[in-house]
Amino acid sequence: MNFERIQAAAARLKGRSRLTPLLSSPALNDIAERQIWVKAECLQHTGSFKFRGGWAAVSALSEDAKSKGILAYSSGNHAQGVALAAREHGVEATILMPSDAPTIKIEKTRALGATVILYDRASQNRDALGAALEREKDLTLIKPFDDPEVIAGQGSVGLEIAEQSQAEGIDQAEVLICCGGGGLSSGIALSLEQLAPKFVVRTVEPEGFDDVARSLKSGKHELNQTTSGSICDAILTPSPGQITFPILSRLCGAGIAVTEDEVLKAMALAFQNLNIVIEPGGAVSLAAALFHGNELNSRNIICVATGGNVDPTLFKLALETLS
Amino acid sequence: MNFERIQAAAARLKGRSRLTPLLSSPALNDIAERQIWVKAECLQHTGSFKFRGGWAAVSALSEDAKSKGILAYSSGNHAQGVALAAREHGVEATILMPSDAPTIKIEKTRALGATVILYDRASQNRDALGAALEREKDLTLIKPFDDPEVIAGQGSVGLEIAEQSQAEGIDQAEVLICCGGGGLSSGIALSLEQLAPKFVVRTVEPEGFDDVARSLKSGKHELNQTTSGSICDAILTPSPGQITFPILSRLCGAGIAVTEDEVLKAMALAFQNLNIVIEPGGAVSLAAALFHGNELNSRNIICVATGGNVDPTLFKLALETLS
Repeated sequence: MNFERIQAAAARLKGRSRLTPLLSSPALNDIAERQIWVKAECLQHTGSFKFRGGWAAVSALSEDAKSKGILAYSSGNHAQGVALAAREHGVEATILMPSDAPTIKIEKTRALGATVILYDRASQNRDALGAALEREKDLTLIKPFDDPEVIAGQGSVGLEIAEQSQAEGIDQAEVLICCGGGGLSSGIALSLEQLAPKFVVRTVEPEGFDDVARSLKSGKHELNQTTSGSICDAILTPSPGQITFPILSRLCGAGIAVTEDEVLKAMALAFQNLNIVIEPGGAVSLAAALFHGNELNSRNIICVATGGNVDPTLFKLALETLS
Repeated sequence: MNFERIQAAAARLKGRSRLTPLLSSPALNDIAERQIWVKAECLQHTGSFKFRGGWAAVSALSEDAKSKGILAYSSGNHAQGVALAAREHGVEATILMPSDAPTIKIEKTRALGATVILYDRASQNRDALGAALEREKDLTLIKPFDDPEVIAGQGSVGLEIAEQSQAEGIDQAEVLICCGGGGLSSGIALSLEQLAPKFVVRTVEPEGFDDVARSLKSGKHELNQTTSGSICDAILTPSPGQITFPILSRLCGAGIAVTEDEVLKAMALAFQNLNIVIEPGGAVSLAAALFHGNELNSRNIICVATGGNVDPTLFKLALETLS
């Protein structure tokens, strides 16, 4: 995995992925007592950065592989990103989703033309189901983060951050990234290493699910005890990836963990001051910027708001924190 | 008022106003049975396009006028746009706001450093109050729409629409614009006349406050009976402007009026499919695109989502339409 692969993916994504804006608001700066910038990937196609990695991976397939179709496992954002990427390439997509995934995410994935196969988390083995499908139809599996082409696609966010930061005159910053398996964080870190070496990537996770922060501290793969029971569903992964972790170890600062209350407040403040919708898993970075100043070292903080696919009920709960 | 003035304002705004994205979503296209694009001016500085006109007007003042300060009347978005523009120029801003304006808009205007003077709509005469302030302190009044520099600033949205549409391969479209006094609509219409002559501007207003639609039909300035009593507070003006109306008459198609229910649904669908926050007055254009297909003539519809400064309570009401 290297920078050249990211540049190649970005070249393929040009005109396909959306150049998302770098937003800011005086009110957020006042709260954080720093200059806060928000890279609004919630405005990306399908509502999260996952479209980039999905598109990069599908576009890198051979014609033979494209004709046979692709497979993905996902409870949400990766599913939609891959489904749209496949549709735009005329490739058939099969997505394995847990039957308890948010209804809206299942519906949106189906609406994008993918064949969604639901499985019961308690009684069925997802990997066995997937392996059978792979064999039977000779499908290509597109992993959510531990895949060089997926990381390369996500890394295109870093190229945009470098360019947009330069235009804003930002010469040094910490870049806070909502982190699950580390595909986005490692891709951005590789981009910034080349283009903005004074920028430092900091991963952010929910308290109790901070496998990456603990792994960065101990130097080895630490596990989460569970991957359910948080509102931040988009970034609950058991452990950092085999490809991503060495990159994160080499390039990132210490990880940060935030509370669910901080996440809900960050969502509400983004609503109030930026007019964007962020889902809980996409708001941990902004929560860290606003409420964990004691762990930050820079005057400029760039937060990647990674996604915005949130149920209205949960969003209303976040808005309650404003009153 | 002409195209060259818009180009000059856009040159001054370069690097100051935000290039807002042109968003789209397959789900919205399905509902409308057309290709829908949303120019997200709710992501502009201060949460609405009004920053553009405010900045254009303040930047055009003489040094002498700047040193004395500026005055604006506004219940919300114009207030914030002018306040930030003034602050960025080091100019003192005094804003007259009705005491029943949304609390959040009053607070945000004060937070931007403006001196806010509240008046009671029922018992106090705004124009007399303002005239006294103008005389007393020799302030320059920046009108919300009937001012060539303000129209020129808003017209910069049209330059961006022309460029972004071309990049998307859109060769013909109707451009739906939330319309109060017509500053934005006339500015965009003048821009598109030069750069995308196959595009037709259509003004959109709330039912019962469709003075522009009725004026376009009759050919003379029609009045609204009242300018309160709608959730679309941002676009309730008594009548089209003296400068704007001749431009609208010459360049626009028939006006469209939408219901409050349609507005709330459009806000909710933008939340669900675009991850942006739109206020009621900024959502009438999308409401028309989604629910007034029988009044539209084009396959491509570009909606300007003009602002996003909405109270959480009202936004929650919009989200109720999803269940």
